[in-house]
Amino acid sequence: MFPESIQKLIDLFSKFPSVGRRTAARFVFYLIKLPKNELEDLLNSIVELRKTIKICSYCFNPFDSFENPAEMLCPICRDPNRDKTSLCIVEKEMDLLAIEKTNKYKGIYFVLGGVMNLKKEGKNIRIDELKQRIKDSNFKEIIIAINPTVEGEITSLFIERELKPFNIKTTRLGRGLPFGGELEYADEETLESAFQGRK
Amino acid sequence: MFPESIQKLIDLFSKFPSVGRRTAARFVFYLIKLPKNELEDLLNSIVELRKTIKICSYCFNPFDSFENPAEMLCPICRDPNRDKTSLCIVEKEMDLLAIEKTNKYKGIYFVLGGVMNLKKEGKNIRIDELKQRIKDSNFKEIIIAINPTVEGEITSLFIERELKPFNIKTTRLGRGLPFGGELEYADEETLESAFQGRK
Repeated sequence: MFPESIQKLIDLFSKFPSVGRRTAARFVFYLIKLPKNELEDLLNSIVELRKTIKICSYCFNPFDSFENPAEMLCPICRDPNRDKTSLCIVEKEMDLLAIEKTNKYKGIYFVLGGVMNLKKEGKNIRIDELKQRIKDSNFKEIIIAINPTVEGEITSLFIERELKPFNIKTTRLGRGLPFGGELEYADEETLESAFQGRK
Repeated sequence: MFPESIQKLIDLFSKFPSVGRRTAARFVFYLIKLPKNELEDLLNSIVELRKTIKICSYCFNPFDSFENPAEMLCPICRDPNRDKTSLCIVEKEMDLLAIEKTNKYKGIYFVLGGVMNLKKEGKNIRIDELKQRIKDSNFKEIIIAINPTVEGEITSLFIERELKPFNIKTTRLGRGLPFGGELEYADEETLESAFQGRK
């Protein structure tokens, strides 16, 4: 029904997180009507994003490598003041940011890249990379800071089981997070007490 | 908190219809991780869209002008078999498409570009262009096919009032559409009976 160039772009926008075909179509009509300079701004910003943003080779957190394109580590991983004996495992970038905002955690992170998808038996998360990091480092504590949702709990249990052979103290965020809630939406106080009440 | 290039793109995606800052941030992380060829496909498709899609100079419906770049009218407006004495006023492109799918309406359209925003006193919809079209044509019937929502009803009343001086039979889609429902989501049967039951 739609012209081909519209149809193609609806297909591509439908792959964006939380976007269905109807929303994708709205995006396309929005782009058709967008003033030329705003469209160019959008396209340039996407190109710029890909040019300057790198994924940290240690923790997988994105960072701006504009000032030093050869840099492989994010500012947190290369900060000498961060405690390299404490690792905090999060599902995604936004969760890392939420914890950083509390300003209470001084260790380093690992971005898992998702939660367990039972069909894929954990192959959609960075479990092998995580084990490699732990093998190569000297962690005294590992904090599993994954959303207390059903999938998140399954993921946390899976990680605990996988990390057991390393024999490192492993904690989970406890107090403060209601079951079914999402870490990303927690206010700083709640998150802070969840951090302190870890057990 | 985010690097500047991420922040900038979050700002731009937040302007997309129905996208908040959190969803915008998810889009940015999606783009960061998108394989290079898929990213290029997306950028090229947007450029292509803007190159080939034109807005019809009569009804404001987007159409593909790839085969004839000089064409100003959409396929519906230039179809000699469409009844040029019947005008159907819709809020947006998706609504036009929904009506076309019923295959029952043989007149032409006018895309209003939105519903009344009381603050803007109707300046956000194409009411002047609509009146100009009616002045330049010989319509025997005008069908106001706007969503039966609160804003839609206000818009329909506003249009009826504005078009009264033209003294043309004006109908509204009646039977079939539940109050508060949206035309875009109606199934073809419901929409067809709404069309037939206009009064």
